[in-house]
Amino acid sequence: MRPAPHRQSVLLIVSGPSGSGKDSVIAALRNLEPHIAYCVSTTTRAPRPGEQEGIHYHFVTRERFEQENKAGKFLETREYAGNLYGTPREFVESTLRSGRDLVMKPEVNGALKIKQMYPQAVLVFLTVRSEDVLQRRLEERSANGADDIAARMETARAESKSIGAYDYLIINEELHVAVAQLRTILKAEQLKVWRLREMSQSP
Amino acid sequence: MRPAPHRQSVLLIVSGPSGSGKDSVIAALRNLEPHIAYCVSTTTRAPRPGEQEGIHYHFVTRERFEQENKAGKFLETREYAGNLYGTPREFVESTLRSGRDLVMKPEVNGALKIKQMYPQAVLVFLTVRSEDVLQRRLEERSANGADDIAARMETARAESKSIGAYDYLIINEELHVAVAQLRTILKAEQLKVWRLREMSQSP
Repeated sequence: MRPAPHRQSVLLIVSGPSGSGKDSVIAALRNLEPHIAYCVSTTTRAPRPGEQEGIHYHFVTRERFEQENKAGKFLETREYAGNLYGTPREFVESTLRSGRDLVMKPEVNGALKIKQMYPQAVLVFLTVRSEDVLQRRLEERSANGADDIAARMETARAESKSIGAYDYLIINEELHVAVAQLRTILKAEQLKVWRLREMSQSP
Repeated sequence: MRPAPHRQSVLLIVSGPSGSGKDSVIAALRNLEPHIAYCVSTTTRAPRPGEQEGIHYHFVTRERFEQENKAGKFLETREYAGNLYGTPREFVESTLRSGRDLVMKPEVNGALKIKQMYPQAVLVFLTVRSEDVLQRRLEERSANGADDIAARMETARAESKSIGAYDYLIINEELHVAVAQLRTILKAEQLKVWRLREMSQSP
């Protein structure tokens, strides 16, 4: 009756539209569950004020990004607003081998690609109650213009069509509730039987 | 982006060996989550001191049980120590139609049968750390003799082979932890995307 002492990592993937609060929810989860690793994406876009190398992104030139991509260093890449983004393969693979839980926030296409590679990935869609709420949040925080907001709304509408491919849905109305729900999902996933059985790979 | 206001019920099935603490864990969960319905089994065994009709079991004669069984009133039945037990079909079906969450504690074969009928059922296996712990718990509480304990240990060993068919595993070392884990599973399951999408049947 004794389960194996080790368990497989939870690979927690949180996607959702700009303005849904992904960054705040993930930051709060990482505070509450400091054991969880966070996968920092690589990007060719310039750092915004306050953004730090290795904390928010790995900032690289487009030339370097393309070299790394050619060398198979990314699990998935995407282009947004003229900048490239990639998920570092080695970090994900070594974290999963170690049995440590891992959270990341690729956009929807990236999430679906990662789910194909890692069927055990847990896909969480974070969104808000309505398009009006999303529009208002983007207006409140956007340093950009109406065109940028319209583009983000369009992306949000397109991405919401993929909700059916996700495992869980969180409606972010109050931050502390959304954080508790994400933590609940993590903790329930840790109890999955298949995850608790003897690991086939040694850590 | 707005999800359907209704969601499908969580059908939570908790199985585990005698002595694993199923009754205490489920009672505590029902206190914390009073909205959850509990499926009372029907049995031909005599009530034990303190057991009430409709609360702990529906107590019926063997003749009545067999009539009801022939009339298709049970989702599944089993015989244990010369007594018949059955899960009332109508209660389960009407609760699921209403969208209310439902917990029940069939033994392992019953749980697997119910999972075949309701693939969305969430199967939780509750157990203890080791056979020694189980043996000690049975000795502490058993009004019965060594033969009864040996039979329950044998059943526990046989049933633990089915853990792989379960979704979640809880090791009950401290009651409040096991209760919190079961509640976590319930709350995570409530967030499953498929459950939140438009209900195909009206409530």
